[in-house]
Amino acid sequence: MRTMKVRIEVRLKAGHFDPEGDVTSKSLRDLGFPAGEVKVGKVYTVDVNAGSREAAEKLAQEMCRKLLANPTKDDFSVEVLTVEGRATQKDKR
Amino acid sequence: MRTMKVRIEVRLKAGHFDPEGDVTSKSLRDLGFPAGEVKVGKVYTVDVNAGSREAAEKLAQEMCRKLLANPTKDDFSVEVLTVEGRATQKDKR
Repeated sequence: MRTMKVRIEVRLKAGHFDPEGDVTSKSLRDLGFPAGEVKVGKVYTVDVNAGSREAAEKLAQEMCRKLLANPTKDDFSVEVLTVEGRATQKDKR
Repeated sequence: MRTMKVRIEVRLKAGHFDPEGDVTSKSLRDLGFPAGEVKVGKVYTVDVNAGSREAAEKLAQEMCRKLLANPTKDDFSVEVLTVEGRATQKDKR
């Protein structure tokens, strides 16, 4: 078992109403910024104990399904960033 | 002027207390997940009108300084995703 850092991004599905994004967009325009639509999501960095990158990725997807994302209105994406402190190729990009 | 999609990520600086992350970590462990530390951040996708990629990036950094990030406790990163609907190299990665 190793500790891996997993990055989970949770966004609203297309077409879903995003009141926080709308307020942010209005605030940006009020400050003089040439801003149009704004969408707001969350990004979680989670330390996970798992036997392999694949196992960590599966655990993170399960975390989304059970807690972090609302299946009705959210999309999510998962990426394993580091394994035991070493950056993976994806992390270096 | 073109409309560009800019991705802005706002995270707590290292060492700052993250109560939402702590609660999320506890909830994940209560559900049986082998989770350690959790950090929570926000990701904004903003449509910006700008004359160039560089101008869009500068605008987004200014948005962080003036509204989206708290300079005392937040770090932020900015990435221009698309210009007039075409994916940029960074977006394709």
